Amino acid sequence: MSRYWSAVVHGLTPYVPGEQPRLPNLVKLNTNENPYGPSPRALEALLGEVGENLRLYPDPSADRLKQAIAACYEVTPQQVFVGNGSDEVLAHTFQALLKHDKPLLFPDISYSFYPVYCGLYGIEYQTVALSDRFEIRVDDYPRPNGGIIFPNPNAPTGISLPLTEIERLLELNPDSVVVVDEAYVDFGAESAVPLVNRYPQLLVIHTLSKSRSLAGLRVGYAIGHPDLIDALNRVKDSFNSYPLDRCAIAAAAAAIEDRAYFESTCARVIATRASLVKELEALGLQVLPSAANFVFARHAQRDGAELTAKLRERSIIVRHFKNPARIAPFMRITVGTEEQCDALVSALKEILVVSV
Amino acid sequence: MSRYWSAVVHGLTPYVPGEQPRLPNLVKLNTNENPYGPSPRALEALLGEVGENLRLYPDPSADRLKQAIAACYEVTPQQVFVGNGSDEVLAHTFQALLKHDKPLLFPDISYSFYPVYCGLYGIEYQTVALSDRFEIRVDDYPRPNGGIIFPNPNAPTGISLPLTEIERLLELNPDSVVVVDEAYVDFGAESAVPLVNRYPQLLVIHTLSKSRSLAGLRVGYAIGHPDLIDALNRVKDSFNSYPLDRCAIAAAAAAIEDRAYFESTCARVIATRASLVKELEALGLQVLPSAANFVFARHAQRDGAELTAKLRERSIIVRHFKNPARIAPFMRITVGTEEQCDALVSALKEILVVSV
Repeated sequence: MSRYWSAVVHGLTPYVPGEQPRLPNLVKLNTNENPYGPSPRALEALLGEVGENLRLYPDPSADRLKQAIAACYEVTPQQVFVGNGSDEVLAHTFQALLKHDKPLLFPDISYSFYPVYCGLYGIEYQTVALSDRFEIRVDDYPRPNGGIIFPNPNAPTGISLPLTEIERLLELNPDSVVVVDEAYVDFGAESAVPLVNRYPQLLVIHTLSKSRSLAGLRVGYAIGHPDLIDALNRVKDSFNSYPLDRCAIAAAAAAIEDRAYFESTCARVIATRASLVKELEALGLQVLPSAANFVFARHAQRDGAELTAKLRERSIIVRHFKNPARIAPFMRITVGTEEQCDALVSALKEILVVSV
Repeated sequence: MSRYWSAVVHGLTPYVPGEQPRLPNLVKLNTNENPYGPSPRALEALLGEVGENLRLYPDPSADRLKQAIAACYEVTPQQVFVGNGSDEVLAHTFQALLKHDKPLLFPDISYSFYPVYCGLYGIEYQTVALSDRFEIRVDDYPRPNGGIIFPNPNAPTGISLPLTEIERLLELNPDSVVVVDEAYVDFGAESAVPLVNRYPQLLVIHTLSKSRSLAGLRVGYAIGHPDLIDALNRVKDSFNSYPLDRCAIAAAAAAIEDRAYFESTCARVIATRASLVKELEALGLQVLPSAANFVFARHAQRDGAELTAKLRERSIIVRHFKNPARIAPFMRITVGTEEQCDALVSALKEILVVSV
C-alpha cells in the first residue's frame, strides 16, 4: 500500500497461477501443460531465429503467424489477432470489447482470471450459476448483459458445451460480444470457429500452451469478425507494439502448420484420459465428463485439499480450488503421460487404502 | 468502428512504430536497433531453452532474470520489475502509478507513446515545452502534478539531463512518482538508478532492445522502491501471469551478466556516433548533442521529410516526425555500423550536392 499507487491498484486481487515448482522429479499435473514436447518443426524454426537478427525488432503485426493461423482455420488474416499468451489476448478482449453499461456475464465456476480482469478494467459483472451437474445452461444467459464469456470446455470442470448450444446462445444474444475461450477445445470439444463468419459478435480465443505444447513460449490468438479484431489491434497498439518476440512468432507458426504432430499428441492425451478416468472411477472417485487435458475428480468421503496435500507428500502435484465451496471437494488433475498417470493412481490407491 | 467496442476504443489513437521493412539490402537506421548482435552468451543461453521443456510454463516471476538485474545494479530483486519489452513495463507503469487526480507531466517533445498510454488508461496529462535548445528545464516542472515521466536521454532529441538536475527534480517533487525512461542511457548519459534508495518516488525504466541488442526478444525492466514494484506486480498479475517466455528470461539474464560484451558494443556505437556527427556537420547539418544511439539532425535549407524520402530512394531508412512542427525539419538517424554510417553520409552528400 503506498500513496504513489493509482487508485485501481488498491482494489486489485491478482490472479494466482498454479505453482511452477523448481524441484526435480516431481510428477507435475497441476497446470495442464502437455506431457509431450513441442513439434520438432517448431523447435527447428525457433533455432533458425537464434542469431544476430535478434538485435532487430520483430514484425509488430506477426503476419507470418497470422497467415499460418488463418490457413489452419480457413479464415482470413484480418480475422486473426495474436498476443503474448491467451491471457494477454483475454486482457485486451476485456478492455476492448467487454466494458459496457450492462454487466458482463460468466459462469460462477470458471477461469478465475475473469473477475481479475474485471477488477483491472472496472468492468461490472454477474456470475451465472452452473447447473447441479456443473453444466452451462444457455437459457440462463438471455438477460441484459454487456457481453458473455466462458471457457469451452469449461475450466476447471472440463465439461464441454455442444456447438448447437453455443449457436443458440449467439442467436439469443445478437447485441453483445460472446467470447468462447477455447484453451482446451482440441482435446475433445467442438470449436466455435466455423461460426465466426455468421455471427459478427463471436470471438473465439485459443492458446498454444496446451494442445501445441508451447506454454513456455507464450502465444495465444483470437478469431472473429474483422471489426472485433480491429478493436483488439487498437488496444494492442496502444499498449505494446511488439508483444510477440521473433522466437515465439517463428515457433508458433511452425507449430500451427505441423498438423500431423498436433493431431497425434492430442490423440495420445485423449487416450490416456480415457484410461485415467477408468482407473480413478475404479478407486471410487467421481470424475466429471472431460473434454479437456485434465479431469476434475472427487472422492465421496475424502476432502480435495487433503488428498492434494497427501499427493504432494508423494511428489505428485495436482491443483485444488477452495472457492467456490461447491468445487472444494474436487482435484483438478492434468492428463500427463501414461507413466505419470500410473504414478498418480498408485499414490491415490496408497492414500485411500492406508487411511481407511 | 463497431457497436461491440468498449467506449475507450473509439477514442484511441494507437502508437505507430517505426517501419520494419522486409526488403533485403536496406540500410536500416530508423528504429534505433543496435548494429551489433546480441552477446554470444545470450545466444548460448537461448539455445539451452530450445527443447522439450518449452511445453512447461516459464517462471511467472522470472526470478533468474531479476537476480541478474539486481546484481548488475547493486539493488535487491524486490526493487526490480520485468516485462515484455519496456513498452509493456511503461504501460503497466502508467496504469499502476501515474493515474491520479492531477495531470501527468511530460515534455512536449518526447516518446510519442506517452500520450497513447494516457488515452488507453484515461489519464489526464499536460506537456511541458522543451527550451529553445530542446532541453528539459527542471524549473518548469514544480507545478501540481500526478506524476512526471521523461526519457533520459530524451527521444527523439538524444539530449541528456545531468543527474544533478534529476536529483533536483526529485527534491522538488516528493509527492508524485517520477519516472525516468532510460532506454538509451547506456550510450552516454548518467543513470538515475543510484538514486532509487534515496527517493521512494523514483522509478527507472530500461530496455534490452538497444544497448543489449535484444529488440527481437522483448525484454524491459524497472528499478525502484519495493512499494512501486509491488504496484507493478499487482497490475502484471491481473493482466498476464507469464509475460516473459523461457527463451527471453534465459537470454536476457545472460546478456545482463555479460558486462564485457555490453561495454565493448556500447563503446563502439559511441565512437561511431562521434565520427558520424563530425561528418554530418561537415555536410552543413546541425546535430543536437546526443547521448543516445541515434542523432537528431537538420539541414538549414532542406526539409526533414524531403531528405528522408530521398534517402529512402537510395535504400537508406531513417525516421522523420511530422509533429510537433518544431521537429519537422529534423531526421532521427540511428547510429549503425561504420559502414552503414558511411553509406548514409555518401547518400546525403549526393542528395545535397545534386540539388544545389
